[in-house]
Amino acid sequence: MGISAVSARPARYGWPRLCRLLGSCATRRPHGPAPAAVRPGRALHTARPRRQEVPLTCERYGLRRLPFSRLSRADVAFFEGLMPGRARTDPEELRAFNVDWLKAARGCSELLLKPKTAAEVSRVLRYCHERNLAVSPQGGNTGLVGGSVPVFDEIILSTALMSEIISFDPVSGILVCQAGCVLEKLNEYLGERGFVMPLDLGAKGSCHIGGNVATNAGGLRLLRYGSLRGTVLGLEVVLADGTVLDCLASLRKDNTGYDLKQLFIGSEGTLGVITAVSILCPQKPKAVNLAFLGCQDFSRVQETFTTCRAMLGEILSAYEFMDEKCMELVVKHLGLSNPLRGSPFYVLIETSGSDSTHDEEKLNSFLEQATTSGLVTDGTVAALWSLRERITEALTHDGCVYKYDISLPVGKLYDLVTDMRARLGHSAKNVVGYGHVGDGNLHLNITAESYSHSLLDAIEPFVYEWTARYNGSISAEHGLGFKKKQFIQYSKPREAIFLMQRFKAMLDPKGILNPYKTLPSSP
Amino acid sequence: MGISAVSARPARYGWPRLCRLLGSCATRRPHGPAPAAVRPGRALHTARPRRQEVPLTCERYGLRRLPFSRLSRADVAFFEGLMPGRARTDPEELRAFNVDWLKAARGCSELLLKPKTAAEVSRVLRYCHERNLAVSPQGGNTGLVGGSVPVFDEIILSTALMSEIISFDPVSGILVCQAGCVLEKLNEYLGERGFVMPLDLGAKGSCHIGGNVATNAGGLRLLRYGSLRGTVLGLEVVLADGTVLDCLASLRKDNTGYDLKQLFIGSEGTLGVITAVSILCPQKPKAVNLAFLGCQDFSRVQETFTTCRAMLGEILSAYEFMDEKCMELVVKHLGLSNPLRGSPFYVLIETSGSDSTHDEEKLNSFLEQATTSGLVTDGTVAALWSLRERITEALTHDGCVYKYDISLPVGKLYDLVTDMRARLGHSAKNVVGYGHVGDGNLHLNITAESYSHSLLDAIEPFVYEWTARYNGSISAEHGLGFKKKQFIQYSKPREAIFLMQRFKAMLDPKGILNPYKTLPSSP
Repeated sequence: MGISAVSARPARYGWPRLCRLLGSCATRRPHGPAPAAVRPGRALHTARPRRQEVPLTCERYGLRRLPFSRLSRADVAFFEGLMPGRARTDPEELRAFNVDWLKAARGCSELLLKPKTAAEVSRVLRYCHERNLAVSPQGGNTGLVGGSVPVFDEIILSTALMSEIISFDPVSGILVCQAGCVLEKLNEYLGERGFVMPLDLGAKGSCHIGGNVATNAGGLRLLRYGSLRGTVLGLEVVLADGTVLDCLASLRKDNTGYDLKQLFIGSEGTLGVITAVSILCPQKPKAVNLAFLGCQDFSRVQETFTTCRAMLGEILSAYEFMDEKCMELVVKHLGLSNPLRGSPFYVLIETSGSDSTHDEEKLNSFLEQATTSGLVTDGTVAALWSLRERITEALTHDGCVYKYDISLPVGKLYDLVTDMRARLGHSAKNVVGYGHVGDGNLHLNITAESYSHSLLDAIEPFVYEWTARYNGSISAEHGLGFKKKQFIQYSKPREAIFLMQRFKAMLDPKGILNPYKTLPSSP
Repeated sequence: MGISAVSARPARYGWPRLCRLLGSCATRRPHGPAPAAVRPGRALHTARPRRQEVPLTCERYGLRRLPFSRLSRADVAFFEGLMPGRARTDPEELRAFNVDWLKAARGCSELLLKPKTAAEVSRVLRYCHERNLAVSPQGGNTGLVGGSVPVFDEIILSTALMSEIISFDPVSGILVCQAGCVLEKLNEYLGERGFVMPLDLGAKGSCHIGGNVATNAGGLRLLRYGSLRGTVLGLEVVLADGTVLDCLASLRKDNTGYDLKQLFIGSEGTLGVITAVSILCPQKPKAVNLAFLGCQDFSRVQETFTTCRAMLGEILSAYEFMDEKCMELVVKHLGLSNPLRGSPFYVLIETSGSDSTHDEEKLNSFLEQATTSGLVTDGTVAALWSLRERITEALTHDGCVYKYDISLPVGKLYDLVTDMRARLGHSAKNVVGYGHVGDGNLHLNITAESYSHSLLDAIEPFVYEWTARYNGSISAEHGLGFKKKQFIQYSKPREAIFLMQRFKAMLDPKGILNPYKTLPSSP
């Protein structure tokens, strides 16, 4: 059986409700590449002003600590001997590593380890396994579901000093690097060589590639380059008992046995610690074009997508939509101007290709077709990513925000917004929808003047039940982490959850790796 | 511990040698889309002339049967009750299902089951699990490594009658279908709707999509659309004990827990029986162009690849090479004519895009650049796939063929051919190399007038050791099946093999699913 992470329920609220409390009203992070000023950076960790202390997760939820060993002086001495100067115990230094990016979860770890090699990670885990010490692996600590910080006093195992590029082959485009490489740095490194990373995220300035892989990050380039399931070619992983699993192949094709690395992609540090990554990188596109369009209804948004995909074909790299409420908020709160006449829906299209003349011709043909046929009522070709990117920011100015990141069949994508709006009526201030049409990924956001239990009860579990009814996913790209682990059953059948728990029990029998995360507590 | 499949070694030859015997001289199947006349089809199964009987695998290898139950009359009665008319015991009918496509492996199963639903597969496996009856799952039976036929008397579980298309969404391009759908039929179905399957194989006329996924088939479209790891979105799998695992999501993004389906992709039927597949299908390209070029050395083949990828970018869909020996054999044995002056290397480039004018412009610019810079000495734009496709056929006319399907870092791709040629000298008739430069996939072929032990000993294990030295894969796309399972250690570390064995033991504790396959016998 898997871990039984949280057996004590808090006195006042049931576990699901508390999960929901944490899951809402705290997500104030722009999706997509954020403007430089609000982009998460390491400076946030080291130079944050002391504001109100984030409540300890364990206290907020009234959780019971699992029976792991307590860190002893001898333990600290062991780690100091193993990595002199890189076993940190200064509470002030640990503060930033104990709190998540959203300031919604806080652990009370007393030890931060910064290994430089897989061999060091192996020795750390072997020791922790023998001593029954819990470990919270941490990359750039930019996750949105509380998965990257301790819940209690787990030792924080940071990949911050594992930032070496091991190799890059410009013929194949295959990059091999340590897990702690920052995504943006890798992208810069590749950019100088005519390549790009196959993924891009708002958190790129801080997030580590190991963390990206451990959480199976999606992001902005998924429509074009596919998921990490296809682009990650190999991993080096250290298992809970210290075994180093070297599956760091840098081959596009390898059919020798089960593809073990896949189990670690998206396992959120609960099955092993990723120490190095081999990844296939596409060429840097030579030409990038944008178009911003207005549509009269969501069926036209969909039809425009199919038309555009057919006409732009291989150069289509993004197809994002937002509803008029989103536009209103961006205009109202951020002072951006809507370049189009008012439309119920707006669409942002990006092309990336190898020939600017060809790409512009394709885009113009499509725009002519879309306008002539009435799919699109208005449009402009301009650099308008900011309208789309800053929706999240605008939402945070609108009050308390209840945020959901949902996958649905494309045809049902906007129905959830419509149904939710009808359901909530005047109890919500705004119910807005935007997202990646091409990926079937909806960002549903509900705002209110202030937090209210009754509004939350009207939203949940309705939103999860609705999503489950249409075979959607309650977490498209953010993972389950600490906040959503109790809701997995809305997207996965009982048999699958049971099998996941068996894998966990097999690979980490003592449950020391990132406890209280990803899999639901036992009933 | 995993299965201990073959514990008895044959008297005369060691196991590795016998594996090699089976692995060589039998592969006479064209790679890539074969000409219609030699394309594998179902007719091969039903109307094959009675030639020399293929030796029983168990006798040929002196194998010891694992202690599974023997099929009883009561068992047959049970299955006949479960699926009237679809539990077949006629030896004549079973003959084709007992022999593999290469006529190199033969089992002696006495029962063929043809379920129509996952529920039937579940009832079959639950019964077999309880009764300790071994099962050999079978798709189109087109595999090249002996993985799709019984080794002893395993019950053959065919997906032949599970051929329904469940749904297709033309907005997202997501197809959901039963495992027994024939690849070519799916492609035709999609073609009528403006889409294509993301994979293409020479065996497309017979192979089942379930078998493709179970073996993680690569094929001709991998360079463009990536592997099944990225395009397969969901699976329905029946586990050894009959549990139905419904992970048939049709979503591009879903980060709720571990991605269990990945473990079954490429597991060759040893961990579960795939009963349905959800797969992301790309649009059908509107324009396809070809170019056939001559290069003076392999470094120019590589440099031409990087130039071509940079200039053709998103429309490049194939980059295949062949050496002059391949060309000589195609000319000599098949009477095809070489449209170019003699060159040491030839390259076939394919583009697939959405605008023929744009694509031709790009191709012409590239060709001008490649010729001007001396990368390419000669070239023609013509439909010349047959020269590349018929190499395998030409080789079979050259004598006994020793065939290897190897992945290597692109820079080392041809060195193996050069080294092998130097090593073998006059003991081989021809040593030729061709393959997919873009995928790092080399087809190394060695011909001789007749089979010889001493030649085989000169090739193996040298070829595997050489591949391992450069971190290559000894099976790029064919899998391990029965023939190559004992060589896995050349491509995977001990820790990984051990972990695979633990997964096998966990999911199939009695080892009833496709025994004697994929994982090595215990030492």
